[in-house]
Amino acid sequence: MKDMLMNIESRYERGLAKLREIDGEAGERVLESLDGIAPDFARYLIEFPFGDIYSRPSLDLKSREIAVVAALTALGNAAPQLKVHIQGAINVGVTRAEVVETIMQMAVYAGFPAALNGLTVAKEVFAQGAKQ
Amino acid sequence: MKDMLMNIESRYERGLAKLREIDGEAGERVLESLDGIAPDFARYLIEFPFGDIYSRPSLDLKSREIAVVAALTALGNAAPQLKVHIQGAINVGVTRAEVVETIMQMAVYAGFPAALNGLTVAKEVFAQGAKQ
Amino acid sequence: MKDMLMNIESRYERGLAKLREIDGEAGERVLESLDGIAPDFARYLIEFPFGDIYSRPSLDLKSREIAVVAALTALGNAAPQLKVHIQGAINVGVTRAEVVETIMQMAVYAGFPAALNGLTVAKEVFAQGAKQ
Amino acid sequence: MKDMLMNIESRYERGLAKLREIDGEAGERVLESLDGIAPDFARYLIEFPFGDIYSRPSLDLKSREIAVVAALTALGNAAPQLKVHIQGAINVGVTRAEVVETIMQMAVYAGFPAALNGLTVAKEVFAQGAKQ
Amino acid sequence: MKDMLMNIESRYERGLAKLREIDGEAGERVLESLDGIAPDFARYLIEFPFGDIYSRPSLDLKSREIAVVAALTALGNAAPQLKVHIQGAINVGVTRAEVVETIMQMAVYAGFPAALNGLTVAKEVFAQGAKQ
Amino acid sequence: MKDMLMNIESRYERGLAKLREIDGEAGERVLESLDGIAPDFARYLIEFPFGDIYSRPSLDLKSREIAVVAALTALGNAAPQLKVHIQGAINVGVTRAEVVETIMQMAVYAGFPAALNGLTVAKEVFAQGAKQ
Repeated sequence: MKDMLMNIESRYERGLAKLREIDGEAGERVLESLDGIAPDFARYLIEFPFGDIYSRPSLDLKSREIAVVAALTALGNAAPQLKVHIQGAINVGVTRAEVVETIMQMAVYAGFPAALNGLTVAKEVFAQGAKQ
Repeated sequence: MKDMLMNIESRYERGLAKLREIDGEAGERVLESLDGIAPDFARYLIEFPFGDIYSRPSLDLKSREIAVVAALTALGNAAPQLKVHIQGAINVGVTRAEVVETIMQMAVYAGFPAALNGLTVAKEVFAQGAKQ
Repeated sequence: MKDMLMNIESRYERGLAKLREIDGEAGERVLESLDGIAPDFARYLIEFPFGDIYSRPSLDLKSREIAVVAALTALGNAAPQLKVHIQGAINVGVTRAEVVETIMQMAVYAGFPAALNGLTVAKEVFAQGAKQ
Repeated sequence: MKDMLMNIESRYERGLAKLREIDGEAGERVLESLDGIAPDFARYLIEFPFGDIYSRPSLDLKSREIAVVAALTALGNAAPQLKVHIQGAINVGVTRAEVVETIMQMAVYAGFPAALNGLTVAKEVFAQGAKQ
Repeated sequence: MKDMLMNIESRYERGLAKLREIDGEAGERVLESLDGIAPDFARYLIEFPFGDIYSRPSLDLKSREIAVVAALTALGNAAPQLKVHIQGAINVGVTRAEVVETIMQMAVYAGFPAALNGLTVAKEVFAQGAKQ
Repeated sequence: MKDMLMNIESRYERGLAKLREIDGEAGERVLESLDGIAPDFARYLIEFPFGDIYSRPSLDLKSREIAVVAALTALGNAAPQLKVHIQGAINVGVTRAEVVETIMQMAVYAGFPAALNGLTVAKEVFAQGAKQ
């Protein structure tokens, strides 16, 4: 019973800690932006992506963030989230050069416009002094 | 002048070697499928994605394949290529568990249907005896 | 013959009335924006989507607008139209809470970024005093 | 403490009950298809979409299924899930005519090919004797 | 009044003639496939895309079909329609080589998988003896 | 050997000349925007799309630009590139009316929002005095 209780607590707690580890202040701002419109969605965002998925052991955080930067670049319709995750990638140890390579690779799989727009977002993030 | 010549040769040669290293027989079959319809496209496929992009030093092949599996799962409209690259990922050292995690992560960024369809493709590849 | 004539007239007239009922002023602005670039397209927009489709009896307007808000959120590349249709949904009787639920549901089918960006648009519309 | 425990239990239990109510046998088959490849993903699928989202009170199940049929038709890259949810829509009380209208409406928002392909899936589901 | 009547008649008649000119038998089969599921949609398909859009004078049919083959290749989620329109392009005078070039160009704008899948469809159409 | 050397040189040179012919100053600005973030990507952009693809003889530049305007309108997630290519289309002899028709045609294949957003971009380009 104690295990189950810990599980409930840890899902939210673990998610919030993971969100802070990966996305830092940008993650907090996403949560705040949901105040007054969909506060439950902030909770789901903490619990499912961060509490469940990012907390799984079988893939390291660097690889997870490379996967996310790749996908958001390829989809090409989620610039605010790409921005957060380029910073997130750097926060967990992906180098700027690796971010740039990941985005360039998307030219092959989603076309040059997707890659160009991803590089534009990366340039903005880097200009704002993303930690290397 | 010798450098430039080597550069021409190496772009095609380097691409073909890289394609074979990553995609193995499946890559050869893609090239063959272009015979009689667009043979020049087979050459471009060797030269640009494999000769130029995959051959760049700043991101290891494992990370590149994780990025590609993520993007193709998220786009959801390129099952044949996802199949080739799930095998490709395994060929360059990504474990089956890492492939599964990468695809599951896409539920967060592109929705559960995209992830489910990606897992279905992975199941097929694994059933065909993908090297672990 | 009279029937056919009425049909011609009613298609445009019916469409314009339906556009005004659903989209209100925002719909008028879309039509005006086409002046000087593609005035025929304004006519098609009135005739086909509104004169033909929205005027069909078998699905009520509330359900149609829920379907449109869902689709535009999921596609994630049509923010101006999503804005118009969140207001349109409210104009035909969908509550703010139902709009928010519809958008949140898209996290499952198109990913969290699509839902987050949809909620951002909804927040803007609600802040501009959308009728409840 | 009892509340929290009930919450843990009910999330999975509630999700499984909701999945069965909406998707019936087709839902079970989706869960089974994940055996041996990603059993945890089956659990997430029960817990987040069905235990969290579909169980929310502010939007009725008919409207949720109309939203999902609309979105999957518009995205156009998730035919297996569209099939499950056309049946799911009918299971929760959407009529065949309403399903057809919802899909036709997508011609306006995602183009005629998306609507045509959605109608083809609906025809298959109806031919397999979907309950009206 | 006679003009308006002619306009009604000509919209459907003109659309059907244009559909037959462009898509030939494949177009008829699309219409037939809608019998028993959405017959009104067959009428809209004749009236709006073919009666309104394809019948406009300012862009020749060859260019329209090149645009459609490009878009359907890039979207990558409408293989049945791409098949019909590759044949349609050839029916209105686009050469096989021009079809192949149009699809190859999409590698730049939508990625290599989209182009490869488009070439696969073209290969099928050509193998079925598309008129040159 | 001289041929091979000329081939290396001409790929970059030919691409740059083609980029300037099609995209003019806007193309130069795209290249400059890559300074300091991904200069190699500027080179690939010159070499592959412009040096390889646009330089192929089997499809005239007008048709290529119609294909690109169609695809970027349909994808709906690459407004900056659509802007460059609407101007590019005009630079190689496509008329404003043909640009508008190409975009309007996309309402049929990718929906009215995609076409409306494409027309908005065209209006901006035309207002900035695109050469007719």
